[in-house]
Formats: sequence, structure tokens, C-alpha cells
Amino acid sequence: MTVSKKYLAAALCVNGAVALFPDCVNGPLKNETICDVKASPLDRAKSLVSLYTLEEKINATSSGSPGVERLGIPPYQWWSEGLHGIAGPYTNFSDEGDYSYSTSFPQPILMGAAFDDQLITDVATVISTEARAFNNANRTGLDFWTPNINPFKDPRWGRGQETPGEDPYHLASYVRALIAGLQGSPDDQYKRVVATCKHFVGYDMENWNGNFRYQFDAQISQQDLVEYYMPPFKSCARDSNVGAFMCSYNAVNGVPTCADPYLLQTILREHWGWTDEEQWVTSDCDSIQNIYLPHQWASTREQAVADALIAGTDLDCGTYMQTHLPGAFAQGIVNETVLDQALVRQYSSLVRLGYFDAPEDQPYRQLDFTAVATNASQQLALKAAVEGIVLLKNDGVLPLTLTPTTSLALIGDWANATTDLLGNYAGVPTYLHSPLYAAQQLNLTINYARSVSGHSDPTTNSWLDVLPAATASDVILYVGGINNDVEAEETDRVSLTWSGPQLDIITQLAALGKPMIVVAMGAGQLDCNPIVSNPNISALLWAGYPGQAGGDAIMHILTGKAAPAGRLPLTQYPASYAGEVPMTDMALRPGAQSPGRTYKWYNGSAVFEFGMGMHYTNFSAEVASQMDAEYSIAKLVRGCNETYRDLCRFTASPLRVEVRNTGNRTSDYVALAFVTGTFGPAPYPKKALVAYERLHGIPGGEMRTARLNVTLGSLARVDERGDTVLYPGEYRVLVDTQPLAEVGFRLTGEQVVLDEWPQPPRNRTGRGVSGFEGYFAAGYGSGQEVVAE
Amino acid sequence: MTVSKKYLAAALCVNGAVALFPDCVNGPLKNETICDVKASPLDRAKSLVSLYTLEEKINATSSGSPGVERLGIPPYQWWSEGLHGIAGPYTNFSDEGDYSYSTSFPQPILMGAAFDDQLITDVATVISTEARAFNNANRTGLDFWTPNINPFKDPRWGRGQETPGEDPYHLASYVRALIAGLQGSPDDQYKRVVATCKHFVGYDMENWNGNFRYQFDAQISQQDLVEYYMPPFKSCARDSNVGAFMCSYNAVNGVPTCADPYLLQTILREHWGWTDEEQWVTSDCDSIQNIYLPHQWASTREQAVADALIAGTDLDCGTYMQTHLPGAFAQGIVNETVLDQALVRQYSSLVRLGYFDAPEDQPYRQLDFTAVATNASQQLALKAAVEGIVLLKNDGVLPLTLTPTTSLALIGDWANATTDLLGNYAGVPTYLHSPLYAAQQLNLTINYARSVSGHSDPTTNSWLDVLPAATASDVILYVGGINNDVEAEETDRVSLTWSGPQLDIITQLAALGKPMIVVAMGAGQLDCNPIVSNPNISALLWAGYPGQAGGDAIMHILTGKAAPAGRLPLTQYPASYAGEVPMTDMALRPGAQSPGRTYKWYNGSAVFEFGMGMHYTNFSAEVASQMDAEYSIAKLVRGCNETYRDLCRFTASPLRVEVRNTGNRTSDYVALAFVTGTFGPAPYPKKALVAYERLHGIPGGEMRTARLNVTLGSLARVDERGDTVLYPGEYRVLVDTQPLAEVGFRLTGEQVVLDEWPQPPRNRTGRGVSGFEGYFAAGYGSGQEVVAE
Repeated sequence: MTVSKKYLAAALCVNGAVALFPDCVNGPLKNETICDVKASPLDRAKSLVSLYTLEEKINATSSGSPGVERLGIPPYQWWSEGLHGIAGPYTNFSDEGDYSYSTSFPQPILMGAAFDDQLITDVATVISTEARAFNNANRTGLDFWTPNINPFKDPRWGRGQETPGEDPYHLASYVRALIAGLQGSPDDQYKRVVATCKHFVGYDMENWNGNFRYQFDAQISQQDLVEYYMPPFKSCARDSNVGAFMCSYNAVNGVPTCADPYLLQTILREHWGWTDEEQWVTSDCDSIQNIYLPHQWASTREQAVADALIAGTDLDCGTYMQTHLPGAFAQGIVNETVLDQALVRQYSSLVRLGYFDAPEDQPYRQLDFTAVATNASQQLALKAAVEGIVLLKNDGVLPLTLTPTTSLALIGDWANATTDLLGNYAGVPTYLHSPLYAAQQLNLTINYARSVSGHSDPTTNSWLDVLPAATASDVILYVGGINNDVEAEETDRVSLTWSGPQLDIITQLAALGKPMIVVAMGAGQLDCNPIVSNPNISALLWAGYPGQAGGDAIMHILTGKAAPAGRLPLTQYPASYAGEVPMTDMALRPGAQSPGRTYKWYNGSAVFEFGMGMHYTNFSAEVASQMDAEYSIAKLVRGCNETYRDLCRFTASPLRVEVRNTGNRTSDYVALAFVTGTFGPAPYPKKALVAYERLHGIPGGEMRTARLNVTLGSLARVDERGDTVLYPGEYRVLVDTQPLAEVGFRLTGEQVVLDEWPQPPRNRTGRGVSGFEGYFAAGYGSGQEVVAE
Repeated sequence: MTVSKKYLAAALCVNGAVALFPDCVNGPLKNETICDVKASPLDRAKSLVSLYTLEEKINATSSGSPGVERLGIPPYQWWSEGLHGIAGPYTNFSDEGDYSYSTSFPQPILMGAAFDDQLITDVATVISTEARAFNNANRTGLDFWTPNINPFKDPRWGRGQETPGEDPYHLASYVRALIAGLQGSPDDQYKRVVATCKHFVGYDMENWNGNFRYQFDAQISQQDLVEYYMPPFKSCARDSNVGAFMCSYNAVNGVPTCADPYLLQTILREHWGWTDEEQWVTSDCDSIQNIYLPHQWASTREQAVADALIAGTDLDCGTYMQTHLPGAFAQGIVNETVLDQALVRQYSSLVRLGYFDAPEDQPYRQLDFTAVATNASQQLALKAAVEGIVLLKNDGVLPLTLTPTTSLALIGDWANATTDLLGNYAGVPTYLHSPLYAAQQLNLTINYARSVSGHSDPTTNSWLDVLPAATASDVILYVGGINNDVEAEETDRVSLTWSGPQLDIITQLAALGKPMIVVAMGAGQLDCNPIVSNPNISALLWAGYPGQAGGDAIMHILTGKAAPAGRLPLTQYPASYAGEVPMTDMALRPGAQSPGRTYKWYNGSAVFEFGMGMHYTNFSAEVASQMDAEYSIAKLVRGCNETYRDLCRFTASPLRVEVRNTGNRTSDYVALAFVTGTFGPAPYPKKALVAYERLHGIPGGEMRTARLNVTLGSLARVDERGDTVLYPGEYRVLVDTQPLAEVGFRLTGEQVVLDEWPQPPRNRTGRGVSGFEGYFAAGYGSGQEVVAE
């Protein structure tokens, strides 16, 4: 979805009256099953839908559902956003006072760097709590179109900031923690809110070289699909009971995802058992229209809406179904059963949200603004930013030793950043603490010079203050990088370098020979080699989009009030990478036109590897669990009672790793466990993340134990059919990126398929749209050779 | 230059105090030569510069010149903009009342379509008049960094809107007319304002596939350079006495233009005789910094500013010279003579603007707000838009026959466009008359539905009103296309298609079978084939960015109050073109990786050709001049007394073409003369524009005579060395794109070089910047093969 500023303003203006709840006490439905709290959600929803006329049903397919006045069903807006705090075009903040702000957490890319699942659950719990408070005030909905859980595969992707990173195991774990916080326990009578896993599937490009997300046909092998693109969605659907999915703009292997029964029915619902009556799929906005143009998959508009509905898209972000379903019914290409099914799913979901039930019986309905932006929530926003920040270089200057006579130069485009701290899909934060603000809270002399040098202003008018500020200071702090001007929805990056002007300033400052720290902001990594290799630059941190307390978090780390323990949740590639692989290439393994993708397959030298992150202290680690030298695959599988065998534990109890802080400073430590080895067919990935745990506050000299839950699925690999297979062979588990400990073992016996992947039907071809043959073909799309000078 | 919104706001805030004038009556300089109105501008400037200390001189290299307080020289801001009305970050509009607005004309791309040089002079005269009024109120400067006269070679270029089109002859003629209006006559004692021809040279790409304008090295053959990229600049420098030039961000053949003495000295000053003491070169903002990074041409920052100053860049948009010239002087790599020369040029220019002279002697200094946004200026803005609009398809529905009972559906993203009408580099207009506003002034029923469907909002929420509005109407008018969201500074387009959603709505509307008109907005052409080939769409117009009166102009044309006579000033390529040639390819002729560029060389089929434009009537034409069958080249050259032989007339008096309106409706007619034939070496261009004249208001049945001034230079071709050569051979002059008349002749005898092109020095190589080797190489830059799936 795009939410342009223009559009946002318009939406907020017309947004005065958000949906009220139906009245099951005195309203027209009071005696219907929909109002019977003892009936099942399915029966209640069915009873309501049975009262609708066809026209009313069709109108209810739109995300801006008009309701049915004669039945006392008020309009309902299905589209709310909650990526890192409540937000979106239909969340209505008041101008001042109560409900004029909420808690704004860091972007997921930085929260991903924390590798702390409990943190994610805590953050999501705050978001769902604040959502309920706003909903009770008629200021937002109950359905949140978050998380964006497409793996951040290509460093240029403008929306990578919305994701926790590039690793599918990490994403699967993260999203499980997130959904627990957003929705609550599946056993609860009422859901906190409904989360929506998006964008299903293969969406990770906005606009590369003439290829738009609206028309892109992602060619993905079954192996890559299952190994890389699917795991976060499997986690959502199969393992986390998420309430909703969103299909994507792109097509996969020829079929627009919102019109693809293989994806929406065979995989999502049947293979993953996502069949609760309250689980529904929405289109992206307006991806159903895109099935017609520019995808040209459906030959008519009526066919497009019929294809989408029949494939399993239950809700239309837009009005295309509303407009063209009447024609589709007239043509007899869709029937009321499938429409009823979509609506039953929608209303079952609302039943589970307590939408029809008496507020006095629902704790969430009692929440008001006192539950928003509490002190605890503010502290959590700060904690999330602190936990995510990654230390990439440190010659010992950090943590800074500051005295009241220390003067600090604070320089760079981001030095006084405010809204830039938030990234996209942000609501109104409680406050915006820039690095400058945070520095000013310290007992120091601050010499600030912005030195605008980003792409948005190529003049150097503001540079005149830079050298005087630096010269007058003892320590130089440069805070720069990129922002949503260059990485955003509809905007992929085209370069992985720091801008020439920023590097110019950085190197001028470094030449002064003073202690100097660079903080790199933004999600997509910039090739930091010039900073790493400059001996005059003492330290480098990456701080993503750290949210409302971002400046505080940076200063806490720099001054040692907090210790850095974040890990890069993505690979920092050299700048040349942007010229080595097209964004349209979906393959993970290296090939003729690609050096490979992610830390698992990239065959070049990363500037910083996935999982990299330094500390203010040193750690040692030891594998404390007694491991066998060999394990029988047959026995491993036989001993498992899980419905899905990939979830079976490898060992009865988690792998215990004893981590010791061998230095002086108290610090968190993220225990990352990778598996590597020669098992299954070549080529082999370099390694694969199989478990992680963040240990908190380990004092110097003390030891803590990480409990790493390795599953058979984590040890398995995916074959060319997409089957998940546990292979015999030599395995090694490595603790940390520069391993502090490792343990090896052998799996023996025959290979076993843990999960058999349903194969896609053959010969799925679109029907074309007369008059537009080839018109929307991307400039550098499929098969065509690209010219360059 | 980029002027981001953020930056603009900041600039306007600090903008309260614009420079006052020096006081030559009572100030410290009153007895110096600078204040002696009888002395020459050169002597006056020299006397002032001789009073400056080295530090004061260095500070005066910045566009935000701080002045010299001890001498009573106030700060001066060299950067004002006047592309289509006064504008820019340093033009300070008041919030209300006087000086809160000015006249906002159409973007040059639409004014170019008028092919009316007198119109351009008239428009520029209004701009310079309004500039003086604002300057007298200390609200803008006297130096305007306009025009952008790079030919609009690639349809994707985001700044093509700022140019009059793709043809170098047209641009050369247009810019001569423009400068006359901006500056006044070269013989005037005082210049109206100073114009700045930019961006010299080879700049026509913002950001293509990893190639940024700041670092792009344009590889251009001498033939292409002289034939295509140089003519508008030659016209500025040699033939129009323009006061200033701006060098560009890019490099040409290895050398950043602002550091290239071959371009700035050998070509610009020596070859073109641009040697008046008051003529100066400014850098783009901040292209001098870019010489260091990312170009890595100069090995140090000091070398970068020295290179620029020595090459002939006299002013720095930015502060890089200010900051690094002291170091350069300390290193002895630049001397005060070259700095003095730059400053003498600057101050001579200000002398010619009357900056030091008594206001009472200067009529321009008497202008106030009564000279701004006069009725005549408003009418001229409307006229300019009307003259530019191009009719591309008409089945007879236009002009519309409207009665008070007619209902008109007005639909599309642009239907109620306001600021979109202006395009970039716009000031505050007097008003903004959208198409909807203009339609509402008619005695009609208007059914309006915006139907947002651009890239900025993918939802179809606003589509629900579209079909009801259209169904309720007799006639459907769709106004859509692109805007500055997709074509802008720093943003090149990646697709030449109408968006899928827009085409979806257009074709739904067309299917209603009512009279339907589509108006395409924006500068870069969209492939209109789906509209042209749709028999249910009655008419198609292109209206560019039509300015403050844009809606009025469109309605005047549609209703027949005015007749369309604009001509496309650029080729409308098929959508596939974007995949056929990289933006970085500077060659004009077709080659292995290019189907050729512009109407002269493109070897595919254009959707609409350069010069295309229909009327509401029919015209016939006849060449009335008596032409010989043969002309001796030797005799033609011998008979010419011009200093520059390419300016020699081909025939003693202009070619007369009698144009007759054979229909009923009064209409303008643009007489376009192209030359074609087989002369000089193959390959031959298809044809080349050699003259044009717009005839005004020809009543039905009447005849007017166009006088087309064909020069030897227009008939000549450019060889591989860059020499302009008049070749023997067969020539034909064609009147109009589908020729209404033509005349043939032969040139005989030996070929003659009309202009011998100075060859560039060999082995010009940069010095590199240690630490960044290869770091800034573009992803798909020089030599590297591009991968694609």
C-alpha cells in the first residue's frame, strides 16, 4: 500500500466518524444468532450473512465496508496499520490532548537487530493495547495490516525497513513473537486485535529499472520459494494462528498472487491448515484491479474479481469487487457460496474481536487513553532502540569518557533528525528525541552543525559551520546515512554507497585527528568500507530508524549508559553488489548473473556479515549440553509427536550454551547458533541460522546459559521440488559469527522428508487483455537482454 | 539544483533580509571608480576588486556572497530562478497582499510546443519585469538561473519539462527569443536581468539505474556534441549575448564540466567569443564539491576548487570555494589573477545591472507591484497555454457543441489539478484555474469524479463515483497522465506507459460509447497507442504543464473558443523504447544498443512524431519563393558577410510559404520547415528542422505568408571531428510533418567547412582520490555488461 502525504491528508479529513459497534441489545439484530454470545463464531457469522441481500454482500467486500443500515451494521474500515505503533490513513489522531499521540517504536529492521523475541511480544502488546484504546474512542479499527514479513533479500528494497531482516528463520521466530503480542493467545475468548501477514508472497521490489511491483512476475523456483520466501508466512499461518493474510501486488510464476488458488488455497489453507473460520485474506490496495491491468491476467474486469474471490481473496482493499462483482454474477462466473464464505470469514473474525458483544464483558473495551503512551511504554520504546543498535567498529573510544568540560561536535543530516527517526508507516509519536536533543541532556558543551549533504539538497551552504564546530570540539560525532527520501514505498535504492558529499564531510572531519564516531542511519546498508578503513575514524554504529527515543538510545550507547549488543540482521554488501544482480532475479544461489543472496549464498566478501555486532566487553561461550557423535534420522523422526515434523526438537531439551562475560562491563549478549556442514546435495549454503536467544545484563565475570531450541526443520534442507528433507551427513553448530564455540555431530541413516510440498498445477496461463498486448512489459523484464554502454 | 520542500521552507524562513544596494552617494565607495558611472563596467569592477583583501575575494566566490561591510558592499544572493515566472528558494513572496504572487506561465515544454518565438520574448519580458519589481522590494535577485536548455533527448528525463523539447534548432531559436526578453537588448545601458544558460553540457539524466547526475561521465562523440548537445548553448553564448552560463553536474568524456578548460575556455569563451567582461560561469549546486566526490577527478578538495576556478568557473553555488580556496592558495596551485578575473566578471555584470548606480536614472528600478500580474500578463499566461496545447486525435467531436442542457463528466487525476498545473521551479501563481474550475465557468452541468489512479495512491476508493458521473453525462472528459511525482529533478521515469489503473478507467469510460475526450498531462510523453486505437475515444490532446490558466486554456480549446495549433516538440515513442536504450547512452544515431534518438535518428515507429499537431480546420501550403534548381556552395559562402558562416542566409530573402486555411474556422498555423536528402556521409538523418514560424489567426478561406529564414548552418551537417560542413547533394525542404508543400534543389561544388571545431586535448585524466577507488562506480556504468533475467 502507498500512503502518499496528499492522500493521508484527505483521508484524515473525511475521517471524523469511524465505525461504531452494532447494538446487540436494542438493535435490529438483537434476536438473531449473530448476537447470541453462546453460539459459535461461525454460526453467528453465518446467521448475519444470511440476512444480507446480494448487493449488501457485494458491498461488504470492500475494505471501506459500508455496513447495512437496515440491520444496524455500521460502516467498518478494515484498514489500520500498526507496524511499529498504531498508524495509517484511517487512524485518526486528535490535534491535541488525549489521543493526539501514541508510542512509536523503532522500525522492525532495528527491532530485528535486537534478536529478542520477548521484546517483540512486549512491543506488540503495547501496540495492541494502544490500538484498543484508540478503537474504543472510534479512532482506529481492530484489524491491523501488519507485519510486513517478506524477507529483506535485496539491499536496495525500499521497504526492507519494515521487515526484521534477511534471514527466514529469524523472521519466522520474530513474527511468532509479534503475533502473540498483537492478537493475544489463540485460546483467549477475544482477540486483542487481528494481525495481517503481508505480502504473500515474493514481494520485495518496488520499482527497479522499469519493473513495477504492480506488474512484476516473480519467477521463483519451488526450492527458493520453500527455503526462503515461505518460512515467515508458514510461521504466521501454521504456527501462530494469525487472523489475516494479505496477498501481494506481484505475480509468482505467472499468476498474480491474489488470483492464485495454489497459493491461497492449496498452500495457505490446505497445506498449512489455516482453516479457522475467522481467518481471511485481503488484497493489497488495489491488487485486484492489477489482476486486470497491468498484469493482464484476467481478460475482463469481471473475471479479475471472480478470479480473486474464487482463489480465496476475501476482502478488497479498494472498490473493484464492489464495482465489478455485479457483472461477474450476471455473467455467472462466480456464485454466492464463495461470496458468503468470504463474508463469513470476515464476520467470524469480528465476532472473535468482540465486535458484536457487550463492552462490559470485554476488558479490552474498557481501555482508554490512560493505557496509551504510559511510562512503561516509553521505556520500552527506548529499550527496543537500545537493544537494536549495532556496534560495527570501535578502537576503544567507546564508551565515551565525558566530563563537564568535554565538548562534543554533533554533525550530519541526522544529527537533529526528528521525523526521520520514525521511518515509514509511523503514527504520531509521544515525542521525538533527536541525537542533538539527547546530547543536550548531558552535561557537556555541544557544537552542532547540520551540514546538509543528502541527496535532497546538493548545496553546501550549510557546510560552513562544520569545521568550526569540529575544530572547537574534543570529540566528533557524525550522524548520517539515508532516510525515506531514498528508501521508501515505491522507491528502491539504486546505489549502496554513502553519498559523495557525506563522505567528503566525514573524511574532512576524520582528518582533524580527533576521536570521531560515525552513526549510520537508515535500513538498507551503505557500504561502510571507507569508514572502516579510515584509521582516523574511531567507531561506527548502525542505528536504523530508532523511533521516538532514537536519540536517547544512541546517546545511551555512546556514553556507556547502555551496552551495545545488537546484531546486523542483514548483510552489508560492497557497493559493487548493486551492479552484480538485478532486483528481479529471485534466485538465492549464485548463478551466471548473480553472486548469490544473503549470508547463506553470497559468494563475495561482505563488508559486514549478517549477525555481526561488537560489544563493550568480551564473551566466551561453551556448549554445555552433552551431544552424541551420531544421531539416527529414523529415530529422531520416530521420537517426534508434532503434527508438523519440521517442528520436532532435535534434542529432548534445548541446546545449552554457557556464555561468560570475560570483561568488566555489564552487557547483553545475543547467542546466535548457525548450522553448517556437508549434507544434502551441493551446493551447500555457507551456514544457516537455527536458533538464537538474547541474554540480558550479564555482569563482568558472570555466566548465563542460553537455551537454543534446534528443530529438525532447522537442520533440514529443501530440495528442488520444495520438499523439506532431513539428510544424513556431517553437521556442525557454530555459536556466533566468529564462532566462540562449536559442536559437531553426524546424522545417519536414510534421508526423510519432513514436509512434502504440494506441487503447483501445470499450464497456468492468463487470459490476456485485448488491446494491451505487451504494452505493460517492463523495460528490462523477463528474458530480454539489457543493453548498457 | 534541487530545491526540496524541506529546504525551500528553511530558505524562505531565513530570507527576511535580501541584499540592499551599495550606496554610491554616501557610502565608503563614493569616490572610487566603481561608483563612476562614466567609467567602463570593466574598469569599475576592477577598481572594486582591487580594494578587496584575499579573504574578501575568496568569500565572494559563493553564490551567497557575504559582501564586504567595510566597503559598503551588501550581501548578494546570486541564485534566483525564473523558469516560467519568478521562483526559487531565494525569491521571497509575502504571505498576502503585494508581492504575494506573480504570473506563472506554462512550463517551457508547453511553450516550446507553441513554436512562437515572439510569444517567448513576450513571456520573458514579463518575467524580467516582475523580477525587477520584486528586486526593488528586496524580494529576489537580479541573476536568474534560467533557461534549462539541454535538449530533451530521452523521454524518461525528469527535467525535460524545463526544456522546450528535443530539437536543437528549435531550442537555439527559442532561447534567443527568451534571452532577449529576460535581458533586453545588448545595446541597452542596463540589463533587465541576467539569464543563465544551463546546464553546460551533456546533462539530461537524473538517476538511471545507479547512474546519478552527480557522478555521471557522459561519453559523447564530437559529432553528437556539436550536432546535438551544443547548438542551444552556442545560441546563448555566441548569438544571444547571455550574461551567464552554468556548468553541469556530469562529466563529459572524463572531465567534470566545471573543471574543464576545454569546455569553459576553448569552446565557450574562445570559440564562441563569449568574452565580454560581464559574462560569468556559475557551478551547479554543488558541482564543485562533486569534482572531488563522487567524480574523484581532483585528488584533493583544494585541487577541486583550483581546477574549477582555473577552468573558468567564476562562481560557486555552494561554499566549497570559500572553504577550500585558502588551502589552494597556501599550496600555490591557484593564483590571485584568476580569482580577480572571476570577481571582475561578477561585478562587471552587476554594474551592467545598474547595481551601483542611482535608482532614479534607471527605469527598471522604478517598477513596483503594479507591474506584477497585470491583466496583460494574465492574458499572456493564458495565451501561452492555449498556443502550446496539441491536438493529437479528433474524430470530429471537437470543438464541442455545448448547450445549457449539456452535461459534462470531468474525470481523472488532473481534472481538478491545481499546483500540478505548474510543474517544477514554480513561484506563487496569481491563481490556479483547474480544468474543473474552468468547466464550472461554462453554462453546463458538470459531473466531477477525481478517480485517483496515479502511482501515488493505488487504492480505488475514489473510483466509485466515476461510472455514475459518466453515466449521468452527455460527454466525458478525462484529464490524466503524469506529474512531478514521477518526472522531476532527481527522478527520471522508468516507464512510458499510462498506468494500469488510469487505462482501466479510461477504457471503462470509453466502453460507455459516449463522446469522450482524453487530455494527457505532463511533459514526458506517455505511449498513447491504447487511446489512439480505441475507436470509442473521440479525441486526444496533450497539455503539458499549462500553468496558472491551464484549465482555462484546455476549456478554450475544447469548446472552440480557441483553435489548437501547437505541435509536439518531442517524439512520442512506443512504451518499448524504455527497454531499448540506456539513458546513459549519449549517441543519437542508431547502434547496437539503441534504435536511435529523436525524430532525426529513431529507426522505429513513433506513436506521434515530433511536430505532430492537428487543427480544427485544414490548411494547404505552397512555396512562393522562386528557388533555383542548383546553388554553388562556393558562391553561397562567398556571398556571406557574417562572422560565423553558419549564420549566413541560404537565400537573400527568407523562404516564403503561402499558407491557406481551406476550412471554416479561424486558426493559427505553425509552419515547420524540415530539410531532408542525401548529402554528406551516410547515415542520413530522416530530416531536420531548419525553420519555423507561427502564423496567427488565419480566418477560413484566407491566406498568410510564412517567412522562413533558412541558414547555411541549417543545411549543413556535422562530421566526426565536429566540423560543420556544407555538402553538395540533393536537398528537399518539406513544409509540415505530413508535407503540405515541398521544394527541391541541389548544392554543387566542393564541400566547405562553415565552422571548424576545436579538438579536445588528448589524455585528459583525473588524479583520483585515494580511499575511494571504484567506490562510486555506477552499478551499470561504463563498459559493464548488465545482467537481467
